[in-house]
Amino acid sequence: MKALVFDGGIRLADLPVPEREKGQALVRVDLAGICNTDVEVTRGYLAYRGIMGHEFVGKVEDADDAGLIGKRVVGEINISCGECRMCRSGSPRHCERVRAMGINGWQGCFADYLVLPESNLHVVPDSVADRHAVFAEPLAAGLEVLEQVHIRPADIVAVIGDGKLGLLTAQAIYACGHRVVVLGKHLEKLAIARNMGIDVAFASDFAGQVDIAVDCTGNPSGMQTAMAIVRPKGTIVLKSTFHEGSPTNLTPIVRNEITCVGSRCGPFLPALRLLEAGAVSVEPLIDAVFCADEAVRAFERACARGSLKILVDFADRR
Amino acid sequence: MKALVFDGGIRLADLPVPEREKGQALVRVDLAGICNTDVEVTRGYLAYRGIMGHEFVGKVEDADDAGLIGKRVVGEINISCGECRMCRSGSPRHCERVRAMGINGWQGCFADYLVLPESNLHVVPDSVADRHAVFAEPLAAGLEVLEQVHIRPADIVAVIGDGKLGLLTAQAIYACGHRVVVLGKHLEKLAIARNMGIDVAFASDFAGQVDIAVDCTGNPSGMQTAMAIVRPKGTIVLKSTFHEGSPTNLTPIVRNEITCVGSRCGPFLPALRLLEAGAVSVEPLIDAVFCADEAVRAFERACARGSLKILVDFADRR
Repeated sequence: MKALVFDGGIRLADLPVPEREKGQALVRVDLAGICNTDVEVTRGYLAYRGIMGHEFVGKVEDADDAGLIGKRVVGEINISCGECRMCRSGSPRHCERVRAMGINGWQGCFADYLVLPESNLHVVPDSVADRHAVFAEPLAAGLEVLEQVHIRPADIVAVIGDGKLGLLTAQAIYACGHRVVVLGKHLEKLAIARNMGIDVAFASDFAGQVDIAVDCTGNPSGMQTAMAIVRPKGTIVLKSTFHEGSPTNLTPIVRNEITCVGSRCGPFLPALRLLEAGAVSVEPLIDAVFCADEAVRAFERACARGSLKILVDFADRR
Repeated sequence: MKALVFDGGIRLADLPVPEREKGQALVRVDLAGICNTDVEVTRGYLAYRGIMGHEFVGKVEDADDAGLIGKRVVGEINISCGECRMCRSGSPRHCERVRAMGINGWQGCFADYLVLPESNLHVVPDSVADRHAVFAEPLAAGLEVLEQVHIRPADIVAVIGDGKLGLLTAQAIYACGHRVVVLGKHLEKLAIARNMGIDVAFASDFAGQVDIAVDCTGNPSGMQTAMAIVRPKGTIVLKSTFHEGSPTNLTPIVRNEITCVGSRCGPFLPALRLLEAGAVSVEPLIDAVFCADEAVRAFERACARGSLKILVDFADRR
């Protein structure tokens, strides 16, 4: 099968179809999405080597659970042991032996086939198209903010960053009835948010005014902006992961008694529900769709500054 | 009156006794304590110039409230406007126009006299000696952790740093019935904690094991240690303020969905209650007491690595 591999460089490889173990499903990938974390992996994040990718929609080819076979699915990316303290305490995404598809110790989804535990899969409602279902994983990550932070009706939530994660997270929060403003630098991307009915502004307009700031910039500057706009005793949600550190003086966090919450993967079921209800609009976030043979070029395009979601279509050759 | 002033350098100055305004009290300072924040002020923190110091015990010489006159008091260090959004929402310590005694826009307590709003003062119970009452402010700061974070009975709380703030904060948490371990590097200071009945250890023993990590190191390394010892979805409380930044990659916060809470000043009344009950032991934290004429030397001693609490006695010349 074709697979996009990172082994120090990015290349297309011809690899055997993976074999599933007990409790696991073999999934034929139809469509996959490239995330900023994939780009960070190629910069050294978590020293990952192997098939890349963790956003996909596909069909189950084989599984122990016969009811799954043939179903169209998306999948949670964290593979947990089910036995450690974190698993037993209800946080399998933070399993002590956690592996993450295409990021850490588990082969990714930029390939014709992947294997995941059956319990990681969620069946996609029929009315949700592949090119929308593939957003389930990053939309779930956006919804994680609402799992973690109590947003009050009068709160102002600012999403920092008008990239794909920012626009998706802002929509997730907006769809749940909250007042959101997207703070960005790119007029054409802010226009996308505005078209979705979400307020947009420049960060300088909000110094010390925001109750909850969500950093979706993907780089260390987001934390600086967040510290500048959040009110005393406010909350910063950090969603950016990156390989390189950057000088950050956290003294404003102490002086203003800010709460800072790291936020990663989120719940798939409400994400699929929002997609099914049409409560979020992902179509404007699609920058381009590449065929699988062009996956390397797709990845280069995803690395370019300002790109939105790049999709790779594995079904088109079949 | 004598006063220890920072104007780029530290020096003793002869200044007029300050005049109180309506609603303010004139307090004759008996004993004052030097805090790590004072040291950071001399390194440029908040660009403060003026009389230094914010930990004191003294007697009210004059006030509008006749009942206060002659009373032995300690004082909250934040002066708030009472009118802004933060004051009206019940957070006067985070007033939008806040000033802080000896730190930001308000003359400090390393002087024969100081002025504070009457509402900042708390009368000291008779049974609490001056040399213990002077710890009310930093003990209140330690108790702020308990105002901010819900500590569950099974939680392990680790206080990082065996300096004066660490030993005081650990005692505050321990006195409130929680399981605490002090992580430090100095055997003689860890011995102080052990003598108080508190567990001690080296940070390397606790990788990923701690539910709540409280950084009392006063330097950027504390955050690194905290990220190393706290479990996924755990909490880090940051109490260190410093002038200089340091490279910190916050990606572990995101990946492990850590909550990070900045923590500064705390509630005086429970601090005085703990001191009155003898539930915390501050005597072993006193490194030396200097007379006011020796205040510059006292400050130099407080700047020396490894010093515990340095007190300055303003009463001894009277």
